[in-house]
Amino acid sequence: MPQLNARQLFAANLKEQRLAKGLSQEDLADLCGLHRTYVGSVERGERNISIDNMERLSQSLDVPLEKLIKSQKS
Amino acid sequence: MPQLNARQLFAANLKEQRLAKGLSQEDLADLCGLHRTYVGSVERGERNISIDNMERLSQSLDVPLEKLIKSQKS
Repeated sequence: MPQLNARQLFAANLKEQRLAKGLSQEDLADLCGLHRTYVGSVERGERNISIDNMERLSQSLDVPLEKLIKSQKS
Repeated sequence: MPQLNARQLFAANLKEQRLAKGLSQEDLADLCGLHRTYVGSVERGERNISIDNMERLSQSLDVPLEKLIKSQKS
């Protein structure tokens, strides 16, 4: 796997953690008050997401923010 | 210490890591192509910084991004 940048890592980890919770993009969007299409574009690495929205997503998933950024499973 | 939000944690960790490298805000700003006043405002938690700029700062400091977000020293 090629080296992923932070945006791509966050995207992949977000999707993995969302699916692990059995949530759709719409479920997650509703939980954190963001739009479904926004969550989709974040999961595709298209958005230069801000730290406040990263925190909202991590809190809605009940996952520490650093876990959504790490390249290796801890 | 009260619970810090992600922005405040990033701000505190960024300042700590910058000082550990013996860099001024201006040095760090020059290293990553950002403005000195921007770096200062990030370190005060005033900015809703984006993931791309977080990555630029972490790379300029040669510190993994997750280390700038963690609440506990690993």
